Amino acid sequence: MDQFKPTPANSCPLTPLVFLDRAATVFGDSPSLVFNSTCFTWSETHARCVRLASSIVSLGIQRSQVVIVLAPNVPAMYELQFAVPMAGAVINNINTRLDARSIAVILCHAESKLVFVCAQFSHVLLQAICMLPHDLPRPILVIIDAGDYVLPSPPDLNEFYCTHEDMVERGDPRFEWIRPKNEWEPMTLNYTSGTTSSPKGVVHSHRSIFIITVDSLIDWSVPKQPVYLWTLPMFHSNGWSFTWGMAAVGGTNICLRRFDASLIHAAIPKHGVTHMCGAPVVLNMLCNDPTAKKLENPVHFLTGGAPPPAAVLLRTEALGFVVSHGFGMTEVAGVVVSCAWKRKWNVLPALERARLKARQGVRTIGMTEVNVVNPKSGIIVEPDGLTQGEIVLRGGCLMLGYLKDPQGTAECMKKDGWLYTGDVGVMHPDGYLEIKDRSKDVIISGGENVSSVEVESVLYLNPVVNEAAVVARPDEFWGETPCAFVSLKDAAGMIEKAKEKEIMEFCRDRLPHYMVPKTVVFMGELPKNATGKIQKFSLRDIAKSLGTSPSSRL
Amino acid sequence: MDQFKPTPANSCPLTPLVFLDRAATVFGDSPSLVFNSTCFTWSETHARCVRLASSIVSLGIQRSQVVIVLAPNVPAMYELQFAVPMAGAVINNINTRLDARSIAVILCHAESKLVFVCAQFSHVLLQAICMLPHDLPRPILVIIDAGDYVLPSPPDLNEFYCTHEDMVERGDPRFEWIRPKNEWEPMTLNYTSGTTSSPKGVVHSHRSIFIITVDSLIDWSVPKQPVYLWTLPMFHSNGWSFTWGMAAVGGTNICLRRFDASLIHAAIPKHGVTHMCGAPVVLNMLCNDPTAKKLENPVHFLTGGAPPPAAVLLRTEALGFVVSHGFGMTEVAGVVVSCAWKRKWNVLPALERARLKARQGVRTIGMTEVNVVNPKSGIIVEPDGLTQGEIVLRGGCLMLGYLKDPQGTAECMKKDGWLYTGDVGVMHPDGYLEIKDRSKDVIISGGENVSSVEVESVLYLNPVVNEAAVVARPDEFWGETPCAFVSLKDAAGMIEKAKEKEIMEFCRDRLPHYMVPKTVVFMGELPKNATGKIQKFSLRDIAKSLGTSPSSRL
Repeated sequence: MDQFKPTPANSCPLTPLVFLDRAATVFGDSPSLVFNSTCFTWSETHARCVRLASSIVSLGIQRSQVVIVLAPNVPAMYELQFAVPMAGAVINNINTRLDARSIAVILCHAESKLVFVCAQFSHVLLQAICMLPHDLPRPILVIIDAGDYVLPSPPDLNEFYCTHEDMVERGDPRFEWIRPKNEWEPMTLNYTSGTTSSPKGVVHSHRSIFIITVDSLIDWSVPKQPVYLWTLPMFHSNGWSFTWGMAAVGGTNICLRRFDASLIHAAIPKHGVTHMCGAPVVLNMLCNDPTAKKLENPVHFLTGGAPPPAAVLLRTEALGFVVSHGFGMTEVAGVVVSCAWKRKWNVLPALERARLKARQGVRTIGMTEVNVVNPKSGIIVEPDGLTQGEIVLRGGCLMLGYLKDPQGTAECMKKDGWLYTGDVGVMHPDGYLEIKDRSKDVIISGGENVSSVEVESVLYLNPVVNEAAVVARPDEFWGETPCAFVSLKDAAGMIEKAKEKEIMEFCRDRLPHYMVPKTVVFMGELPKNATGKIQKFSLRDIAKSLGTSPSSRL
Repeated sequence: MDQFKPTPANSCPLTPLVFLDRAATVFGDSPSLVFNSTCFTWSETHARCVRLASSIVSLGIQRSQVVIVLAPNVPAMYELQFAVPMAGAVINNINTRLDARSIAVILCHAESKLVFVCAQFSHVLLQAICMLPHDLPRPILVIIDAGDYVLPSPPDLNEFYCTHEDMVERGDPRFEWIRPKNEWEPMTLNYTSGTTSSPKGVVHSHRSIFIITVDSLIDWSVPKQPVYLWTLPMFHSNGWSFTWGMAAVGGTNICLRRFDASLIHAAIPKHGVTHMCGAPVVLNMLCNDPTAKKLENPVHFLTGGAPPPAAVLLRTEALGFVVSHGFGMTEVAGVVVSCAWKRKWNVLPALERARLKARQGVRTIGMTEVNVVNPKSGIIVEPDGLTQGEIVLRGGCLMLGYLKDPQGTAECMKKDGWLYTGDVGVMHPDGYLEIKDRSKDVIISGGENVSSVEVESVLYLNPVVNEAAVVARPDEFWGETPCAFVSLKDAAGMIEKAKEKEIMEFCRDRLPHYMVPKTVVFMGELPKNATGKIQKFSLRDIAKSLGTSPSSRL
């Protein structure tokens, strides 16, 4: 029995890229993607991706080099999820809400030689390019014109090598796409924070992306040929892997440039939408929209990023959405814990159902183990629903690590074989996991992760600030917003309304809009524990006691 | 980007065994298995498998040793698919239609230290044990008493160490099941032929079984909590991987000791069956049964092993079965090519639909590549639907190899990275594969593979036989039956009815019943090509011209 060694026939690398060739064969005539008046079939999407990959290679991009994409959910964005790795390169989708400074940090860190940018974001990208050190080679820029957005003025256009459509047209239709030699080769890069000088770039292999993709299809019981509406930005962990998943099942990708609840309510019956994903805030916006009405056919909605509030669950389910709740993080490329629903729960009162569904749940079948441990001892805590600990994971869809950060990688994926999520949770007696207190450092605003450490580091740049701590404040619209607690250097007497505005403006000049504190609380001194560490838990209590913040839609 | 190495957290071995723990958490209260009046929940099945695994270990069975199971689709058979590998051992399900001699060959070859046998087959097993060489240590025998079969007389029982239920009861409920250290560790062993002195034992790894299991769930779009009726023997490639697949989706396994069309027609509405698998002969028996009537709810039926005849497809689909057709082999652990259905085909005439569905189809998403090559040059043939070649495969669910047969392994999985199936096919212009002429050596009778080479080797033992060649003869009931062409040593004048019976009886003494030729044709000389090789294709033409054989149900 010990005679066997992997052979070329049985050890060919796992990769989701093979789904596209197959989709062209099986679903060739079926729609792959719809965007305004644009409609492609799977044959066309396959052909376009092959051509694109060939054009990327012909620009000199080599195996494992990073190609950056800065775009909303337009057709080119979808195509690049395949085409970039089909060129042997690593795809790095950038959060479109980042400011120029954050983008510049990523451009430096990823050393990308090629950037695709949607016209809508060409201005901020060019600003970022201007901020690059002079000795850094400038990346080749390709502009995406999705046809629905007015291109920038001609001088800007000169900065770009060509358009995305030129890349498609110039490509070789018979190009043999570049398969990974090894399934552990990197395929994707996603930055979980990019505004400091030490960004965390999560790198995933072809293997991990294959595993999360098939895992998510099974966990969500996705049937053949669903109609998938892209309400989740593709830049978020590559759309929780459903970018590739749709090719596996021959789905139709309905793309939208921007999130608009009324547009979505119109799109659902128009396209016969069956599946959608998004943060709870998306559900909230959908049910609060004045055009909301009961769906003719049920739509499956997978939510994550934060526990869905009971009221939101009840209202969206009343509209006909079948809501599933999952938990994941960029480090695992998608949803790895999901609140697997039990039939016996159907008879429970609505609020009890909502409470159960707000729990994160159990590991998906692609994961090996998920548990809650004492972060100091690494020992698994009692599954009593009370004992808190750190949520830990192990499984085939875990990242390779953080780019250029072996120390950060080792601190996250420890020698004991667990990935430490930094999230605090409990294990219920029924084996379902619940997050009690999300990572101390993270605020989740509208589905976006805001690192409090990053906001604090900006606050500390302000000469009047003595101490600063940022925690989450509940928000009925965004879920949470950053709430800053600040002590000032000169006196307590300066606490007045004007100061709050000043602090916010100071942050706005230095941070993306969504990371700017929406509330600033001044204190004489911040509460600290015996070793002098700021006690964030008591600040969170204060933030909570402020109630939901006066919400402002963007 | 080249800095990354697999870590313990992201490189934990892929194995389907983790599905069972999860099923106990998510589907704990739901039925896992129903057999006559026996009904288990997933919590119970999990607990029983853990205990069983611990008992297997306590008998001294070590990692990678083979545990043999000889049983029909009874609850113990299902449990052992998990419990044996959870003990670190390799499970070897034996075809229950084998005779004692064939079983003895397998017992020797697999060097099994432990055999589970259903009471129904204890007699043939004990016969096989008697045939073992005297210097071979006798395996420990455990008898399975499923409660519905009269146990053999007491003297026989003394041969057995204990019962399957004893093993469950004695087991440690807190046993930590043995996880593979490496996903390439062997998990299953299946003999594709066992009657000669050189049996082919297909070994699969935990990795390949994980991949085929998730692949098959996606390919067949299996939803959560299906009700799966076991019409396919679990000893056939471990039930095409749906043994483990049912744990992944929390399905209910409806078990039957034997195939009986009327029982099945009764079981479908009784249990609310949603899914079934089996060879086309099963479909045929279902629609020919006098109790057949239109189903109240559609039942998904995955068929394979042979192309489903058009008439059978039309009749079963009229009854309400939704038939999918796939292709696989023991070497790939399940279905790896399936006739993915296109919506546009729905409007075609019924016969045309049946013709399309009888094609084997396209690779499933877990496979890397499937093609048809010239077996001499290894070059891919023209996809014109006409040019024949050998069907070749590559992908993660391919076997590790043949046990103790490195030469056979290398001949099957060649250095060019393909597994050569031995099946002759064409690739259609639309990318769908069709088997034109199944492997020269294989006759598929009632879903069972009959190696013509093996039957021929027995015929050649007969002193009156000069030459012998065995090919398939069409059979309306079994699909095919073995048809022997024989030339005699002394004279052509001996061709008479009596001789045909003699030849059959000679085979019956030396072969399992299903391998015995149902037709014997005497010829003066068998047709040969220039190099002296018997031209089987012309014998197949003769066999076909005989029409369907006078069928006799067993």
